[in-house]
Amino acid sequence: MSQTIEHIAQALNARAEGDLSIEVTSASEPATAGPDQIALAMSEKYAEGLREGEARAALLWEGADWRALGLEAAVFVTRPRLAMAGLSKAFDPGPNVEPGIHPTCVIDPTAIIGKDAAIGPFTVIGKEVKIGPNARIVGQVTIAEGAQIGSDALIYPGARIGARVLIGDRLVCQPGAVIGSDGFSFVTPDPSGVEEIRHTLEQREEITEQKWSRIHSLGTVEIGDDVEIGANACIDRGTVRATAIGSGSKLDNMVHIGHNVQVGEDCLLCGQVGIAGSTRIGHRVVLAGQCGVSDNITVGDDVIAAGGTNIYTNVPKGRTIWGSPAVKMETQLEINKSVRRLPRLFAQMAELRETVTKLTQKGGTE
Amino acid sequence: MSQTIEHIAQALNARAEGDLSIEVTSASEPATAGPDQIALAMSEKYAEGLREGEARAALLWEGADWRALGLEAAVFVTRPRLAMAGLSKAFDPGPNVEPGIHPTCVIDPTAIIGKDAAIGPFTVIGKEVKIGPNARIVGQVTIAEGAQIGSDALIYPGARIGARVLIGDRLVCQPGAVIGSDGFSFVTPDPSGVEEIRHTLEQREEITEQKWSRIHSLGTVEIGDDVEIGANACIDRGTVRATAIGSGSKLDNMVHIGHNVQVGEDCLLCGQVGIAGSTRIGHRVVLAGQCGVSDNITVGDDVIAAGGTNIYTNVPKGRTIWGSPAVKMETQLEINKSVRRLPRLFAQMAELRETVTKLTQKGGTE
Amino acid sequence: MSQTIEHIAQALNARAEGDLSIEVTSASEPATAGPDQIALAMSEKYAEGLREGEARAALLWEGADWRALGLEAAVFVTRPRLAMAGLSKAFDPGPNVEPGIHPTCVIDPTAIIGKDAAIGPFTVIGKEVKIGPNARIVGQVTIAEGAQIGSDALIYPGARIGARVLIGDRLVCQPGAVIGSDGFSFVTPDPSGVEEIRHTLEQREEITEQKWSRIHSLGTVEIGDDVEIGANACIDRGTVRATAIGSGSKLDNMVHIGHNVQVGEDCLLCGQVGIAGSTRIGHRVVLAGQCGVSDNITVGDDVIAAGGTNIYTNVPKGRTIWGSPAVKMETQLEINKSVRRLPRLFAQMAELRETVTKLTQKGGTE
Repeated sequence: MSQTIEHIAQALNARAEGDLSIEVTSASEPATAGPDQIALAMSEKYAEGLREGEARAALLWEGADWRALGLEAAVFVTRPRLAMAGLSKAFDPGPNVEPGIHPTCVIDPTAIIGKDAAIGPFTVIGKEVKIGPNARIVGQVTIAEGAQIGSDALIYPGARIGARVLIGDRLVCQPGAVIGSDGFSFVTPDPSGVEEIRHTLEQREEITEQKWSRIHSLGTVEIGDDVEIGANACIDRGTVRATAIGSGSKLDNMVHIGHNVQVGEDCLLCGQVGIAGSTRIGHRVVLAGQCGVSDNITVGDDVIAAGGTNIYTNVPKGRTIWGSPAVKMETQLEINKSVRRLPRLFAQMAELRETVTKLTQKGGTE
Repeated sequence: MSQTIEHIAQALNARAEGDLSIEVTSASEPATAGPDQIALAMSEKYAEGLREGEARAALLWEGADWRALGLEAAVFVTRPRLAMAGLSKAFDPGPNVEPGIHPTCVIDPTAIIGKDAAIGPFTVIGKEVKIGPNARIVGQVTIAEGAQIGSDALIYPGARIGARVLIGDRLVCQPGAVIGSDGFSFVTPDPSGVEEIRHTLEQREEITEQKWSRIHSLGTVEIGDDVEIGANACIDRGTVRATAIGSGSKLDNMVHIGHNVQVGEDCLLCGQVGIAGSTRIGHRVVLAGQCGVSDNITVGDDVIAAGGTNIYTNVPKGRTIWGSPAVKMETQLEINKSVRRLPRLFAQMAELRETVTKLTQKGGTE
Repeated sequence: MSQTIEHIAQALNARAEGDLSIEVTSASEPATAGPDQIALAMSEKYAEGLREGEARAALLWEGADWRALGLEAAVFVTRPRLAMAGLSKAFDPGPNVEPGIHPTCVIDPTAIIGKDAAIGPFTVIGKEVKIGPNARIVGQVTIAEGAQIGSDALIYPGARIGARVLIGDRLVCQPGAVIGSDGFSFVTPDPSGVEEIRHTLEQREEITEQKWSRIHSLGTVEIGDDVEIGANACIDRGTVRATAIGSGSKLDNMVHIGHNVQVGEDCLLCGQVGIAGSTRIGHRVVLAGQCGVSDNITVGDDVIAAGGTNIYTNVPKGRTIWGSPAVKMETQLEINKSVRRLPRLFAQMAELRETVTKLTQKGGTE
C-alpha cells in the first residue's frame, strides 16, 4: 500500500516540502527506516536517528531543516499524536476479509445484510438481524436474533453480539468482546447480608442461609456511533431499560460494564476498568486502567481518574481523582506524602510525650 | 409471549385485584409503559409515572389504591426485587436455538446427549462427553473429551468447557467463559525469589537466572447445581484434586478462579474478582467487584467484601471487610477518616512541638 | 497412560527403591490413592495419609522408610514442586486432537503448515501463515494472515492470533486468548484533559468537547520461545514497533498487555495483571494477581510485586514491592502498621494538646 508524500501531507492536512512524489510503503522509527519508509521524527531528539536511518522522507517538527538532515522530502506537523492518527490510518491494511459472505456462514434467511458486506467463515447471524452497508466481519462471530448494527462495522473473530442489541455506525469490535451477556442480578427470598450492610455498614442480624434467584435481563444494550469495544470486554444487558454506551466512547480490553449502566459520549475506559450495575458515567470521562466504579452512583462529565482508582460515591463533574477511596488527585498526593511520613510522625509523638511528661512532672514538683 | 395478570400473580405468589384477564407482553418502567405492558411501580415514588404512562396493569406497593392510579388491575408485592425475579423469568424469551442438533456440529459418536437438546451451529463435542436432558447450547461452543454436564444447561456462544470437567444441573454459562483452562503453576530448579520472600518478606539471597517449568494440571473442575458462570470468566483446573465451585454459586463476568480453589455454596463473586490458587472460599461469601484473594488462604462462610478489597490473609466467618489490606469495614471507615485528617495532624504536631520547645526553653532558663 | 516407577524416577532424575516394575496410571493424594496410583507424599505430614490409602508406590521425602509405610516402591525427591513438574508432565494426557487437519477447517492455500500437525474443527488460517512442525491446534481457532508460529505449538479453542504476529517455539495458548488486538491509542484534535493533567497534576484549562481519533496499530506482536498465554488474556499490537514478550515468560488468565509494551524473559504475570502502553518490564519480573502498571514506565529486572500492587513510576531492578502506590515491601508493612495505629495517634494528639495547653496556661499565669 504505497503512498506519495503529497498524499500523506493531504491526509494529515499538513505542509510538505521537497520531492512530494516520493513513494513510501510504511512508517518507521528514524534509526531503522529504510528508503521506502517515512521516518517518524516529530521532535528534535530524533535528528540523530534520522542520520542513522535511510529514510528519504520524514514527518518533522515545525522549523526543522530537512535538507540538513539528509532528507529529500518532509511533512511538517505541529501535533505529533494527531499526525500519527492520520498517518497510521493511511497505512493500516486492515484485516483480510474476502468480499461477500463465506459459504460456511449460517445466516438466518430473515436477516438483512447491507451491501458490500465481507463476512468471514463460521459466522452465525440470527433471525431478523439487520446489518448496515460495508460491514467487515472477520469470521467466527455470533450476531444473535434481532440485533441491529449500523454501517461500516468492523467485527473481529470471537465477538458475541447478543439478541436485540442495537449498535450505531462505524462500530469496531475487537476479538472476543461480548455485547449483551445477562446482567449479574440475583435476589434472595429475604433481605440478604449485602442488603443489610448497605444500611447498617457492617452490623448484621442473624445470618440466614438463602438461595439466589436470577433477575432476568429483559433489557438490551444500546450503543451509539463510532464506538470501539476492546478485546474480551463484556457489556451486560439491562434489566428493563437498555445498558447504554454513548457515541464516540472507546472501551479497552477486558472492560466490564454491568447491567443498566449508562456511559456518556466520548469516554475512554481503559484496560480492565469495571463499572457495576446501574451506574451513570457522564460525557468525556476518562478512567485509566483497572479503575472500579460501584453500582448505582454517578460520575460527572469530564471526570478523569488515575489508574487503579476505586470510585465508591458520586463524583462531581470536571474532577480529577485518584486513590481508594477516590479523592481529588491533589488530596491523594497530599495523603501519599503524609502516609510516607507517618513513621516519623509516630517517632515525634513518642518523643514529645516524653518531653511533656517531664515538663508536667517538673511543673508538678514546683 | 403474552401473559395474563392472573398468571403473573400466580408466578409471583402475590395477591392481585381488578381485571385479571388483561394480557401483557412485557414489563416497563411506569412512565413509558404502553397498554400491553405491565408497569413496574413497586414504591410510591412511581405514582406520578403511572399517570404519565398508558399501562392498564401494574406491580404495585402493598396498600396502593390502583383505581385512583387509573389502573384496571394490580399485583401487590412486598419484596420488589424478589418480584422482579419471578416477573423477569416469566417474560424472558431466552436465546433462540432451534430444537435438535445443527448439522454443522462436530460431535464425537461416543458422546451421549440427553433428550430434547437444542445445539446451535459449529459446536464441537468430544469423546465420551455426557450432557443431560434439555440442554440449550446456543452454538460455537466447545465441550472437550470426557466432560459431563447435568440437565437443563444453558450455554452461550464461545464458551469453552475443558476435558473431564464435571458440572451439575441447570448450569448457565455466559459467552466466552472458560471452564478448565490449565492452572498457572510453575517452578524453578532452585527456589525462586518468590519462594524466598514468602519466608523473609523482602530479603533475598543473590538473584539467579532460572527457567520456569510447568506443573501440569492433572485435576479437573467440579461444579455443583444451579451455578452461573459469567462472560469471559475463567476457571482453572486443579493440579491433582479438582478446582470446585459449590452449588448455587454465581460468578460474574471476567471472574478468575485459580487452580485448586474451593468455592462454597451460594456465593456471589462479582465482576473481575480474582482468587489465586488453592484458596478456600466458604459458603454464602459475597465478594464485590474487583476483589482479589491471595493463594493458599481461607475466607470463612458469610464473609462480605466491598469492591476492590484485597484479601491477603485468612478471614473469619461472618466478617464484613473492606480495603487493602482487608480489615473490618468499620475499621476501614475509621482508617479512611483518619487518613483524610492526616494533614491536619501533621500541622498540629508541628505547632505542638514548637509550643513544647518554648515551654522547655522557658523551663530551662528558670 | 501407564508408567513404571522406574520410568517416573528417570523422568524426575530421582533415586528409587523397591519394585521398580510397578505400573501406575495417575497420581493421587496419599489418603485417596488406589493401588494403580502413585501417592504424592513428599513430606512427613503425609505418613498418616499413606496408611489410609492403598498406594503401592509413592513420591517420598528423602530419608523416609518406605517399607515401614507399607509401600512396595518409592521415589525420593528433594524439591517437591520440581518433582511435581516432571511427574505431572509424565501423566498429562494433553488435549485430544486427531492427527491431521480436520476437514471443516478453512485454510488459505498459501499457508504453510509444518509436519505432524493436528488441527481441530472450524479453525481458520489466513494467507501466508507459517506454522512449525508438531502443532496441536485444538479447534475453533483463528490465525490471521501473515502470522508465524514456531514448532510444537499448543493452541486451545477460541484463541485469536492476529495478522503478522510472530511467535517462537513451544507456545502454549489457553482458550480465548487474543494476541494482536489493536492498541488502545486515541488522540483529540487539541490536547485533551488527560494530556493536560500529566503536566499540571489536576489543574485544567477550560474543558472542551472533542472527539477521539484512533491511532492505528501498524506494529505487531513478537513472542519468544516457551511462552504461555493464559485464558482470555489479551496482548495488543504495537503502534509502529512490535509489542514484545520475551522467551520463557508466562502470562496468566486475563492478563492485559497494552500496545508497545516490552516484557522481558522468564517473567510471571499472574491473573488479571494489566500493563499499560509502552511500558518496559525487565527479565524475571514476577507480578502477582491484579497488579497494574502505568504506561511509559520501566520495571527493572527481578522485581517482585505483591498482589494488587499499583505501579505508577519506574521501579529499580531487584526490588520487592507492594501497595498503591507501590513502595518497598518493608515500607508498606511499616505503613500498614502505622495506618492501623492511626486512631490511637489521634487520641494521643488530643490528650497531649490538652496537657500542653494546661502547661502553657500555668506557665502564662506564673
